Amino acid sequence: MSLVVLHPYSVIFEKMQTFSDRLAFRIRQKKTPVLVGLDPRWAQIPEKLKEGKTENNPQDVADVFEYFCKRIVDVVAPLVPAVKPQSAFFEQYGPVGMQCLTNIIRYASGKGTLVILDAKRNDIGSTAAAYASGLIGPNGSSPWGADALTVSPYLGDDSLTPFVDVANNRGGGLFILVKTSNRGGAQFQDLLVDGTPLYRHVCSYVEKLASESAQKTATECGYGNIGAVVGATWPEQLAELRVAAPRTWFLVPGYGSQGGGAKDVAGAFDENGLGAIINNSRGIIFAFRAEAYRDRFGEVNWEEAVEAATLDMIAALAAETSAGKL
Amino acid sequence: MSLVVLHPYSVIFEKMQTFSDRLAFRIRQKKTPVLVGLDPRWAQIPEKLKEGKTENNPQDVADVFEYFCKRIVDVVAPLVPAVKPQSAFFEQYGPVGMQCLTNIIRYASGKGTLVILDAKRNDIGSTAAAYASGLIGPNGSSPWGADALTVSPYLGDDSLTPFVDVANNRGGGLFILVKTSNRGGAQFQDLLVDGTPLYRHVCSYVEKLASESAQKTATECGYGNIGAVVGATWPEQLAELRVAAPRTWFLVPGYGSQGGGAKDVAGAFDENGLGAIINNSRGIIFAFRAEAYRDRFGEVNWEEAVEAATLDMIAALAAETSAGKL
Repeated sequence: MSLVVLHPYSVIFEKMQTFSDRLAFRIRQKKTPVLVGLDPRWAQIPEKLKEGKTENNPQDVADVFEYFCKRIVDVVAPLVPAVKPQSAFFEQYGPVGMQCLTNIIRYASGKGTLVILDAKRNDIGSTAAAYASGLIGPNGSSPWGADALTVSPYLGDDSLTPFVDVANNRGGGLFILVKTSNRGGAQFQDLLVDGTPLYRHVCSYVEKLASESAQKTATECGYGNIGAVVGATWPEQLAELRVAAPRTWFLVPGYGSQGGGAKDVAGAFDENGLGAIINNSRGIIFAFRAEAYRDRFGEVNWEEAVEAATLDMIAALAAETSAGKL
Repeated sequence: MSLVVLHPYSVIFEKMQTFSDRLAFRIRQKKTPVLVGLDPRWAQIPEKLKEGKTENNPQDVADVFEYFCKRIVDVVAPLVPAVKPQSAFFEQYGPVGMQCLTNIIRYASGKGTLVILDAKRNDIGSTAAAYASGLIGPNGSSPWGADALTVSPYLGDDSLTPFVDVANNRGGGLFILVKTSNRGGAQFQDLLVDGTPLYRHVCSYVEKLASESAQKTATECGYGNIGAVVGATWPEQLAELRVAAPRTWFLVPGYGSQGGGAKDVAGAFDENGLGAIINNSRGIIFAFRAEAYRDRFGEVNWEEAVEAATLDMIAALAAETSAGKL
């Protein structure tokens, strides 16, 4: 991919490579759809990384989070196609947390890993354009530098279009909330509209955007740059939506600590093992705390626990889903 | 209000004053429900403020935004109860934009003005708690320091509860999207569920939260600390929701540049002129560009245009709505 840098935040790709194709390429290259979520929580980080630091000092927290997340990236970048930092855990500590977040995004990009920023943004038209301009932009085309962003659909089509345009034009991607992994997600998402749950109506619109995106940017893999968030905690709905939305990438949270397993996400994939990325945050980054790894590695060897948990998840998905054909 | 500061981000109020009562107090004190939106856009800022600065340098933009917004606060703090910075316009420029945002929030708080951070956040339970902990927290109880936050309801009750708890416990507030001001908001918000639009179902839940909040924190004004965002572009729905949600504050965007006028928002108020705050962003902060003020003030006297537009809006609401009884 060749590119001409005009000024820091404006990039013209001579031959645009789409987010969708870059994602498909990375998944095939690593032979797995595992997405590692970067959700640092002060209390759970290994004690030795916090020596001499205090949670009451936001800069201390930011320094610890940055070290912790960069080491995780070092371990998982050779193994998985993408990482997903969760903005909330960085915003929690103010502007220094946000600086730490962008440092991690750039570090991960530099390691050749795709970065999906989980920030669930949205607003009305021109304000949505400001979010999109700042938050979606691989290869130096935005200050935050993420390849893709999660967004909320509640504000409707004219709030989503600005994100879609930036994603398509910059080689970026978008994942729109459809059926979230939490139990409470059902409160509004499952309400019946003309006999069909609300999330199906949202998914139909996402599929329309994905299909247009695939056509407009001529993706080779067939999927568009617009995807849907569908939780691993809803196995039947995953399979149902896979059929209903054949051009839509699924970002699937809820694997591991939220209860979803490899069999539960099998329906998210197409017959070639593409079409979905399966996120695991706590189950990987804090693996040293889990029963399965605690005794083998302990807190001192927490990075080895991260590696083992990642490899175990890769193996489980390969065994139980069509991702085994990658 | 007396308080004991334990450490930077943990405050115990000996006698808690709720967000709801502080808002009612400020509205009565200023005799107006006008909320000034801080939506800085580089292209529209007076040229003299941008001399020697360039949009390509995020720190330049942050410096200009900070100066511009602080001058607006200087003008409007004596006139209105609250300001509403829009996070997107700051996030657009990366971490330095976020530092600028928190500087403005603190400056406005220091001037005695309530600050509602318009960031439309949300996520599942424990992640929502991280957002709430960081973003809602008056009087030094959070790194961002805003009195209240806007959030999205799509993820359902267990995503909203953490925000509600932080708001109630810290003397903060919350405004949940119900019926947004943009046309596209109707796409999902107006879908009929059992013969009633989705936004009515969301509003019923917000009213439940508001009512519980009013009771739990024993607000004197009768409204809870949990409010709803309902656009000025939907006058009939505003009046309908005012009746349906008697404990719920309304944050009403869409006044002015989006087409809503003083008569359109009349239904948002109770008979005493309480119950709603009416936001105007571009119509006030960029008033010097509007036909009504351009010739009188010009770009050089942009701050006087801000003052005139604010006073005009205050007068219009006093004339056309029950806010005249304040």
